[in-house]
Amino acid sequence: MMISRILQKNSINRLTINTINSIKQSSSSSYHTTSKDEVVSMSNIKRNDEFSTLTNQDIKHFKDILGGDDSSRMITDKDELEGFNQDWMKKYKGNSSLVLKPKTTDQVSKILSYCNQKKLAIVPQGGNTGLVGGSVPLFDEIILSLTNMNQIESFDDVTGVVTCQSGCVLETLESYLNAKGFTVPLDLGAKGSCHIGGNAATNAGGIRLLRYGSMHSNVLGIEAVLADGTIMDCNSTLRKDNTGYDLKHLFIGSEGTLGVITKISIITPPKPTSVNVALLACNDFNQIKQILIKAKKQLGDILSAFEFMDRPCIDYVLDHQSTAKEPFDKKSPFYVLIETSGFHEQHDAEKLNAFLENIMSEDLVLDGSLATDTKNISQFWKLRETITESLGKAGAVYKYDLSLPIDTFYSIVEVMREKLKDKAVVTGFGHVGDGNLHLNISTPKQKYSKEFLSNIEPFVYEYTSQQKGSISAEHGIGYMKTGQLHFSKSPASIQLMKLIKNSMDPNVL
Amino acid sequence: MMISRILQKNSINRLTINTINSIKQSSSSSYHTTSKDEVVSMSNIKRNDEFSTLTNQDIKHFKDILGGDDSSRMITDKDELEGFNQDWMKKYKGNSSLVLKPKTTDQVSKILSYCNQKKLAIVPQGGNTGLVGGSVPLFDEIILSLTNMNQIESFDDVTGVVTCQSGCVLETLESYLNAKGFTVPLDLGAKGSCHIGGNAATNAGGIRLLRYGSMHSNVLGIEAVLADGTIMDCNSTLRKDNTGYDLKHLFIGSEGTLGVITKISIITPPKPTSVNVALLACNDFNQIKQILIKAKKQLGDILSAFEFMDRPCIDYVLDHQSTAKEPFDKKSPFYVLIETSGFHEQHDAEKLNAFLENIMSEDLVLDGSLATDTKNISQFWKLRETITESLGKAGAVYKYDLSLPIDTFYSIVEVMREKLKDKAVVTGFGHVGDGNLHLNISTPKQKYSKEFLSNIEPFVYEYTSQQKGSISAEHGIGYMKTGQLHFSKSPASIQLMKLIKNSMDPNVL
Repeated sequence: MMISRILQKNSINRLTINTINSIKQSSSSSYHTTSKDEVVSMSNIKRNDEFSTLTNQDIKHFKDILGGDDSSRMITDKDELEGFNQDWMKKYKGNSSLVLKPKTTDQVSKILSYCNQKKLAIVPQGGNTGLVGGSVPLFDEIILSLTNMNQIESFDDVTGVVTCQSGCVLETLESYLNAKGFTVPLDLGAKGSCHIGGNAATNAGGIRLLRYGSMHSNVLGIEAVLADGTIMDCNSTLRKDNTGYDLKHLFIGSEGTLGVITKISIITPPKPTSVNVALLACNDFNQIKQILIKAKKQLGDILSAFEFMDRPCIDYVLDHQSTAKEPFDKKSPFYVLIETSGFHEQHDAEKLNAFLENIMSEDLVLDGSLATDTKNISQFWKLRETITESLGKAGAVYKYDLSLPIDTFYSIVEVMREKLKDKAVVTGFGHVGDGNLHLNISTPKQKYSKEFLSNIEPFVYEYTSQQKGSISAEHGIGYMKTGQLHFSKSPASIQLMKLIKNSMDPNVL
Repeated sequence: MMISRILQKNSINRLTINTINSIKQSSSSSYHTTSKDEVVSMSNIKRNDEFSTLTNQDIKHFKDILGGDDSSRMITDKDELEGFNQDWMKKYKGNSSLVLKPKTTDQVSKILSYCNQKKLAIVPQGGNTGLVGGSVPLFDEIILSLTNMNQIESFDDVTGVVTCQSGCVLETLESYLNAKGFTVPLDLGAKGSCHIGGNAATNAGGIRLLRYGSMHSNVLGIEAVLADGTIMDCNSTLRKDNTGYDLKHLFIGSEGTLGVITKISIITPPKPTSVNVALLACNDFNQIKQILIKAKKQLGDILSAFEFMDRPCIDYVLDHQSTAKEPFDKKSPFYVLIETSGFHEQHDAEKLNAFLENIMSEDLVLDGSLATDTKNISQFWKLRETITESLGKAGAVYKYDLSLPIDTFYSIVEVMREKLKDKAVVTGFGHVGDGNLHLNISTPKQKYSKEFLSNIEPFVYEYTSQQKGSISAEHGIGYMKTGQLHFSKSPASIQLMKLIKNSMDPNVL
């Protein structure tokens, strides 16, 4: 059994190939597409025939484990399978004939134990909202959906620790906590669908990371089921526990390849009661750096987002969003969105105003505007949040999710502009407070082209690697970037990853 | 070669014994002692004879690696060895005849590679300030001191990321950062001696954890040398990097058993410019819980410490510290120390005052006092910080570092009082904001006694285990608690720890 299901050299989901003949690495396509005939071809990788093919007897066994075969427990209908076999971007598609939907950790354990014995490959699936093809089968792997494992088990209003099953939808958890005056220390566009277990498995980032840190900071405990069915109970609700290796961190960000996360405990902060947003216009990226330094010092702990976008982003939004308005009288090369969240309206406003006066007096901004009511706040955020959609409406977009050191953060945008000249519009935006750039290369009114892609890759990865950046800041590796891992990780690191995978899932051949 | 150096079943430092004859687990002594003849006996464990004994040829080889044999590079003088062979409490003592003091990662790599080939056992040592016997040899292991690896390599004032060698002393790093307006997100009593690498290796806690989180939250990158000499470069300075398993977390808290940390990158926050401390008197522990809930909500992100102590702690301090004064007119059963740290004096004071008025109006406190100037702040902290020393002056103290769920947090103190009656004074204090209780059982004017210890152990561990607590909140396992790991970790977890240790250090027999 392998929890992740396909074997490829130098891949994270598929760490363990040794003996399979000549499996070639597919060229990773990092463009976004919604057209079915542009689905990433998997024909150049080969199913490992050492894995078994599902039989009716297997299905009968799973029926026994799950206590029935109605569609709330397992899915075999071809039409119903469709949504599980394909990712939401319709970029990656597998051919599984079975979805299992356990309700308990014990059922997950029995399923994995059986699959391990029978050498049936499995892919765990949360909300299936990932961007890198990590949650869908590539061949006929059984899909283990955590959808039915959605119970919130406990909440402690002294410590703020919530414990729930891994299939709990992020937004559901957020609503539950909001009613108690707390908030999930994580916020994502996909919150209406994504699962908290998937968030942990992929170490999801999002806009609150600047304030609250990553899942490694906030997850206190994890229960996971290993490939052989062993239930690994690391589900502590304690803030401090230095007894042996902290195994939960192995599961955070390992994308389901070391075990299936079944339960999770998170420390949650009180929900801020006062929110302000400022939108600033700047002349160059160096000003943004200076503003970031000052924001961290002067806004201190109420700083909750520091996002930037360059001018082409705003142009795309204005072109494609009917309600969007030019934010200032004059156009500027750069824009910064700063959000504060706190617990004292007057104090927060005073701090933000003093900060804005300071950066204006030091000529770090060309213009600025402050929103304190919900409507204006949401309008400012809309400028930032509709960039992706607007770019998508304009034509083919080649998208990259990079971490880069602050000193060379924006240079990749300029380098790509120089390289591509009038062949494309190169834009940059993202979580500059966390060093995370979303680089977008837009070819208006054109279709995706592998030929054009060769202008970008592997150059963009090589460049990122030279800067000691990361080729995947928050999206993960999945299927998309298995061949690119070496751009961000050393051979010794990849070797150790393989060693860990092999040790924990030795049945993979 | 094994990086940690002794073999015992069910131990974290010594995960891998399979074949050695009948090594018995020594009974772990958790009392503090400064008397030499009370040093923990290691005579009931046996050196593994599969490991080699140091030869002159080995020493010559190390001399070549280090470029000389003066005492700044290696120590063989018996008197000089003393301080490295024994921990600072003089509780654990080994018998090494060689300390190596490399200056570079490359030298560490060559040393470990050689030891691995020659089956020479090694113990890495940082500031040697640990409380559980994890940093000294138990037999004749070579001591690998990181003292000479103390260079601060870089600091980025935009991101706050500092990179340094692992032997950098915490206080040195703090001074360096303070001068730039930043602070290490970690503060310990041992800061004048402890190394930042050792802090990471032991996942050190301390008083800032409530505010900034653990080392897992703040360490961005680690360079470590594995048992075979492989240099594992996970020394990223990026805030976000989702490319494969996040291997650095394996080294954080593994107490040097999986590799020697040689370099580290940490994200550091701006140093707060405004600090206030309030001391409160309470009638029962439930009031403390209610105050904690309110402090988190009303003080929000300026809350930087929430410590408690019960009355006996104050009595010990008053008895043994000549400058200490009764804090209020009347004695109370409980005291809480609340610290705020922020960037706006007036705002912080307003928040703290409003909070204090609120809890007083709700009758959650019997009395309270606020300190805003350095002198008074330090007097309040002194009450908390001199508890350990004062207890030590009174007689033998049996000390436990426990994490417990908030609902049963103080019950262990009451249970132990009931159990021991007039045989001892049972006190509790600690980081209640993090769920970390320091339970102290004091037997005034008496000596340590194994007979008396049997009144406490294993009961205190069993009780903690029943509450799903941790038998080591922040001190780690080391040598002291190797036999107690099972009280906080499941058999499956311990099995996985052993698997990881075996995979990464296979030469241990």
